[in-house]
Amino acid sequence: MATKSSPQSIEVHAPVDMHVHVRQGEMASLVVPHVEQGGMTLAYVMPNTVPPLTSVDQCLAYLDELEKYTSSNVELVGTLYLHPSLTREEIAKAAATKHPRSGRRRIMGVKSYPRGVTTNSEGGIESYEAYYEVFDEMQKHDMVLNLHGEVPSNEENNITVMTAEAAFLQHLHSLHARFPNLRIVLEHATTEAAVEAVKKCGETVACTITPHHLELIVDDWAGKPLHFCKPVAKTYNDRKALRKVIAEGHARFFLGSDSAPHPVTSKLPSASTHGSSHAALNCGCAAGVYTSAILLPLCASLLDSFGALDRLSSYVSDNARRFYKFDGLNRKVTLHKVDSSSQDQRAIVPGSYTLDAHAQIKDGEKGKIQVVPFWSGKQLGWIIA
Amino acid sequence: MATKSSPQSIEVHAPVDMHVHVRQGEMASLVVPHVEQGGMTLAYVMPNTVPPLTSVDQCLAYLDELEKYTSSNVELVGTLYLHPSLTREEIAKAAATKHPRSGRRRIMGVKSYPRGVTTNSEGGIESYEAYYEVFDEMQKHDMVLNLHGEVPSNEENNITVMTAEAAFLQHLHSLHARFPNLRIVLEHATTEAAVEAVKKCGETVACTITPHHLELIVDDWAGKPLHFCKPVAKTYNDRKALRKVIAEGHARFFLGSDSAPHPVTSKLPSASTHGSSHAALNCGCAAGVYTSAILLPLCASLLDSFGALDRLSSYVSDNARRFYKFDGLNRKVTLHKVDSSSQDQRAIVPGSYTLDAHAQIKDGEKGKIQVVPFWSGKQLGWIIA
Repeated sequence: MATKSSPQSIEVHAPVDMHVHVRQGEMASLVVPHVEQGGMTLAYVMPNTVPPLTSVDQCLAYLDELEKYTSSNVELVGTLYLHPSLTREEIAKAAATKHPRSGRRRIMGVKSYPRGVTTNSEGGIESYEAYYEVFDEMQKHDMVLNLHGEVPSNEENNITVMTAEAAFLQHLHSLHARFPNLRIVLEHATTEAAVEAVKKCGETVACTITPHHLELIVDDWAGKPLHFCKPVAKTYNDRKALRKVIAEGHARFFLGSDSAPHPVTSKLPSASTHGSSHAALNCGCAAGVYTSAILLPLCASLLDSFGALDRLSSYVSDNARRFYKFDGLNRKVTLHKVDSSSQDQRAIVPGSYTLDAHAQIKDGEKGKIQVVPFWSGKQLGWIIA
Repeated sequence: MATKSSPQSIEVHAPVDMHVHVRQGEMASLVVPHVEQGGMTLAYVMPNTVPPLTSVDQCLAYLDELEKYTSSNVELVGTLYLHPSLTREEIAKAAATKHPRSGRRRIMGVKSYPRGVTTNSEGGIESYEAYYEVFDEMQKHDMVLNLHGEVPSNEENNITVMTAEAAFLQHLHSLHARFPNLRIVLEHATTEAAVEAVKKCGETVACTITPHHLELIVDDWAGKPLHFCKPVAKTYNDRKALRKVIAEGHARFFLGSDSAPHPVTSKLPSASTHGSSHAALNCGCAAGVYTSAILLPLCASLLDSFGALDRLSSYVSDNARRFYKFDGLNRKVTLHKVDSSSQDQRAIVPGSYTLDAHAQIKDGEKGKIQVVPFWSGKQLGWIIA
């Protein structure tokens, strides 16, 4: 018997993931189907591909490629990579795109990556002033600016991965002040400072929060590559602030998973992977946590763990749909609570997701694409019916 | 031609490593010889073995084992693991130990590990008050208390690996106030706060600084298991404070490498290492940076990089020998500067150090013990003549 305080099942209206990486080629063929498997109705697909999606044509071709791998239950929406080649004309062109089924814009925004802070961000921006014309055009067309909110680490100002987000917030405030009608989303906030900054902004500024940042702190990625992502998870107090703003159901905070698949060989480089190369032995593990395939159950499990299950719908659906002005998303997803003593195998997160690769992956090596998910081997508290 | 400002060779008198982990069994047989290879005359060997060294007899037996692997050029000194079984009598017994060759105490101190903060610290302490009798006895015998200066992470106080050392310093001050004549060493300091705290203490309080903490910051271990150690490297400003106190030649700051060998399979766990076990896929990488085999050249290279080469002797030898009252260490080690354009193979740090294991290592698996050093594949600026 479901009650408000401890329901045994929940129906969620049209969950949407407003920040996801699905890569290209064979990796995309593995992970795109996981968007639907993870309970999502729509996914906002990030443009940090190789090369990055700096034009409308590139972005549409990419979305065409991705749609080969998904059913009509899922709508994929694109965003452009902020780059010097982006013109007013290109913004107008993006604003005129239409999804063949929904009639919605197929490209809804522009994503800004500060240079060098995360995966494939080498072409990222160094100064926002150069893009004021682009932002002005975006504001006219009601396009969304998605901000990766970190500044590069810097010895002079003592900025490290731990303080890179807080140091970025001045840019959020100045952009919002200059373009008050431009919809801006601060992506994957990890700090109390970011939550407070977004709250202080007006109705045109929103914020995504990943499920993994609702669980992890710095200790959890210290020596644990599978939990390493950018921005890095911060302190207990930061986590508390993220949980609190979701538990409050604040209308401008919603799910963007930042789910980021990396081959396990990039995530857990082994001595054998390195072979005898000296230089390679110091190489790092790729930044990213993979959650797409378990996304809605994971969000339910986490919110349940800190008493915010009643805000699941606002976190994974209502708030984003309101901010992004999504109409006509009608798929409903039902979750069932898992009896934690049941050993229900459907609730155990797989050790990895694999694809037998048909083509050569790299360096002449054939093999499986293997992605290890967050909560690998753990039991979810909720599963999709 | 050697000049004071840019010498081509340096002679160092009796370098000593006042904090090193050499493990047991086959790993010890691989790494103990590296103490001499790394240019050290004496090494202070940590007691977090399995089981930990909580008695004089255990510690002496351990030193006997280790000495099988080293020449008479190197003296190994022991320290006991602070533990409820440690009594006044055991302290007196430790104080009465003598090294057969040097006549010096063979066990010079007691090491305190807060519970659960690093490798094999599960038996560490939770409160210092319980050990006041032991500290009093140590003070009487002029034994040294070696402190791993971190408190466990704690949600209530928002303490994480990034703030665990600063939060510990109150204990240093209270111990020093209560036992002003007890020689205390704050081990492997990583923060400006720790440097300031030690400076404020009297002449009985000293501090070790590792070479890797003279180079790394938090960004360097984010996703890089080979650079992950406890305490974790902190910020640019913290690194600056560590470099500054060494460059000043402050008499109470000296080398303790905290060199910690881990099999590469523990340091870089791979998908294949994990096999199909679900639980194991979330396991972490062991904490520790391995520097023993390249220690003196590494220290020279680092101090040279920040203009403190003239303090090499105070860092690696003079200050520790004064504080620990080491007499009669006479071995001199000469370093030569490496021409950075020379591709001198002797200056390239090996990809790994390996030992063909004769016995079964674990889980029925036979194989090589392989340890990847810090600076693996990089060129040192100085080499031992």
